Amino acid sequence: MFPKSFQKLIEHFSSLPSVGPKMAERLVLHLFKQKKDNLNVFVKDLQDFANNVNFCPCCYNLSEGQGECSICQDKKRKSTMICVVEDPLDVIAIEKTRRYSGKYHVLGGNLSVMSQEEIGKLKINELFKRVEEGGVREVIVATNPTTDGDTTALYLARKLKTLGVRVTRLARGIPTGGDIEYADEITLSSAIEGRREV
Amino acid sequence: MFPKSFQKLIEHFSSLPSVGPKMAERLVLHLFKQKKDNLNVFVKDLQDFANNVNFCPCCYNLSEGQGECSICQDKKRKSTMICVVEDPLDVIAIEKTRRYSGKYHVLGGNLSVMSQEEIGKLKINELFKRVEEGGVREVIVATNPTTDGDTTALYLARKLKTLGVRVTRLARGIPTGGDIEYADEITLSSAIEGRREV
Repeated sequence: MFPKSFQKLIEHFSSLPSVGPKMAERLVLHLFKQKKDNLNVFVKDLQDFANNVNFCPCCYNLSEGQGECSICQDKKRKSTMICVVEDPLDVIAIEKTRRYSGKYHVLGGNLSVMSQEEIGKLKINELFKRVEEGGVREVIVATNPTTDGDTTALYLARKLKTLGVRVTRLARGIPTGGDIEYADEITLSSAIEGRREV
Repeated sequence: MFPKSFQKLIEHFSSLPSVGPKMAERLVLHLFKQKKDNLNVFVKDLQDFANNVNFCPCCYNLSEGQGECSICQDKKRKSTMICVVEDPLDVIAIEKTRRYSGKYHVLGGNLSVMSQEEIGKLKINELFKRVEEGGVREVIVATNPTTDGDTTALYLARKLKTLGVRVTRLARGIPTGGDIEYADEITLSSAIEGRREV
């Protein structure tokens, strides 16, 4: 019933999380009602996004272009500390506190919720390799404070300790069952300061 | 903190209705995690959408390409009837009932909620012109059954009656204060059948 190009875009939008078909129709209609210039900027920016944003080959955070991300490239940041998170959005949340000056490692998920195939995609071996290469003194396991995140943390800690590094976990200032990404900055700050041995 | 291309896309998504900044971050991250091929199809389809979808020069519904929309081009549809709606999404809702075989006219809004400048953009004079050109016997004013929609309907009816056409309004099977677009198809069907003189 909709013109073909309109219908196709609705399908793209309804495939996004928390967007239903009705909402997708409204979003696409909103785009259509914008000035053409705005829409063309959207097209260009989406194109740039598709071309330019990649995983950092070192920490698997988001990175502009092919090289390492801005945090890995930053020489002022301590490479003796690695903060392990599930998701790139967790990096953003921790960066906002301005209380952490080490590097990151983005796993891309946690152990329990995934199928065997998906677990294979987690960047766990890459983390062990970074630690084995030496120079790392502490790994802060900042997976979410949920059962799945705790399982992942315990698994990582067992292996990492054999490599002779200090393994810490964020203090439970964060309410259990919550989500790091949505914690307020003060809670997250005190959680970084109050971290303790696993 | 996000890579530049990522941040720009977040801004585009947060400018959409009912999408906040946190949700925009999640949507863009979801796009990033998709296969590159899917993302490239999204880019292409958005490009096609920006290039191809236009207003129909006759009824101001959505149209693929520069010409008239598929409904205006369809010779099986009666051109003696025009159904006036506020929004292209209302056309879709009415088409789904399969009970209407005439043409449409999309106003692009209603009278009361808009500034003087926005009222000037409503396709009201274009509607009068279509009726003046002759051949139209009935105009169904299917603006939303709200105060604003009723005001618009009364305004249109006063003028259209002087042009010698029958003017009807959808029956109030639809709950007053509701939204045509969200009415279920049976309610909307009975509303089309129970229409009455203004």
